[in-house]
Amino acid sequence: MADREAPIGVFDSGIGGLTVAREIMRQIPNERIVYFGDTARVPYGSKSRDTIVKYSRQIIRFLMTQKVKAIVVACNTASAVALEEIRTELDIPVIGVIKAGARTAVSATRNKKIGIIATETTINSGVYTHVIEALSPGISVVGKACPLFVPLVEEGTFLKDPITEEIASRYLEGLKKEQIDTLILGCTHYPLIRSLIGRVMGAYVTLVNPAYETALELKALLFEEKLCRAEGSGLQEGLHTFYVSDATEKFQQFAESILPCSVRNTSQINIEEY
Amino acid sequence: MADREAPIGVFDSGIGGLTVAREIMRQIPNERIVYFGDTARVPYGSKSRDTIVKYSRQIIRFLMTQKVKAIVVACNTASAVALEEIRTELDIPVIGVIKAGARTAVSATRNKKIGIIATETTINSGVYTHVIEALSPGISVVGKACPLFVPLVEEGTFLKDPITEEIASRYLEGLKKEQIDTLILGCTHYPLIRSLIGRVMGAYVTLVNPAYETALELKALLFEEKLCRAEGSGLQEGLHTFYVSDATEKFQQFAESILPCSVRNTSQINIEEY
Repeated sequence: MADREAPIGVFDSGIGGLTVAREIMRQIPNERIVYFGDTARVPYGSKSRDTIVKYSRQIIRFLMTQKVKAIVVACNTASAVALEEIRTELDIPVIGVIKAGARTAVSATRNKKIGIIATETTINSGVYTHVIEALSPGISVVGKACPLFVPLVEEGTFLKDPITEEIASRYLEGLKKEQIDTLILGCTHYPLIRSLIGRVMGAYVTLVNPAYETALELKALLFEEKLCRAEGSGLQEGLHTFYVSDATEKFQQFAESILPCSVRNTSQINIEEY
Repeated sequence: MADREAPIGVFDSGIGGLTVAREIMRQIPNERIVYFGDTARVPYGSKSRDTIVKYSRQIIRFLMTQKVKAIVVACNTASAVALEEIRTELDIPVIGVIKAGARTAVSATRNKKIGIIATETTINSGVYTHVIEALSPGISVVGKACPLFVPLVEEGTFLKDPITEEIASRYLEGLKKEQIDTLILGCTHYPLIRSLIGRVMGAYVTLVNPAYETALELKALLFEEKLCRAEGSGLQEGLHTFYVSDATEKFQQFAESILPCSVRNTSQINIEEY
């Protein structure tokens, strides 16, 4: 019997998954989160499937030591290439960020043309196309890898810069020509340049942020599985804990700038030991 | 007694160190190289000192299993933060890429103003400033981290692009104002956009490529230590071997485009086991 009071494990290759953690905090504020960011081995987006499966397994072994009741793979790349494999090895619910985003895009599109921007490994996996076609066979799907978006977001000073807008224009040119009307932000870093992407794509195009959809999917799942934490336990200081594989300082600085809670409970662990 | 026929270990966080391996092949063509690129954990440039020291130790333990007679740390970030510590733990010669570049810059400067561009961790370590001041106390040193240069080089399609030139102009603006006359390319990726950097800086500024200087330093060192491979053993097929921590395909593709030798001898290893 799973412990309803147990925390939810959320992991990402680094800081990007905090956009998912933030949505979970907003949608299900009385749940506890144990977040892991693999900051010593970030990024995942250009690495091979086997390496990402290995890293995901190590992280899940760590999260299991924290007695989590469910796991959210808050990284598109890990969701794309590792989720199906690791799910079969666990007896707690595991959700990724792909399906919720794909489902929302399918309901949002009017002209049945959906675009996806993501890392190289996510795009090459073809998983978004596969999931969308399974949901609604008539839809055409166009993917585009945008490898510079993650470093541009992490650089910090280029977030609202004409240079980033110019790079976005280049990357998104093909998607505009294909006349997609819905665009999935298929990497957890991309919501941080959401308005810039929206400007480049134009008002006609609906942007889908899987972070938001995933939080809603998690909420429904906890309810179905009778895993919701008791009502009224409320949001309190120290509710959430954060772990990273590299030094904590930079992570804490970024996390504090985007999360509505304290991130003082941040520790470094040696993920290679798991 | 060290084996003169043994190979030289060369390592980097990924593919950048191949620019150093290439110079070694040019300068000392009959030496054998065992190259390791940490492609599963790349990049190092934004990660902490402790993590980079740990990774460097694992790589050195691996290279020692290959019975290398000397080690070249062909990564500026690892040279900056890990070299002094790991050198004391080894009984074979170990050289980095910092000292050779610093020495050349000191001889090249006329106005005694040297600039350094490198990763965040290298710049924050202050090691170039420290080494240059020890060599020649009157010189002023200006450092600038250029975190987007590595992803721009690795992206591939932006190498000769106006966007890269615009980003370079922004990064280098401060160094131009300081009127440096010598600029150290303090990251092994940067020689790949050398001419673009040269255009931005102008003809007055001498660009120093530590890869070239390091190969010369290694040559002198092997001679002094009586470690040169026997004359006439020559360059032959399969002389060099390459190891990476992620899948081999992408690495081989890049390596083949810049090296004068075959890279068919490339294998993936699990570096975390060392």
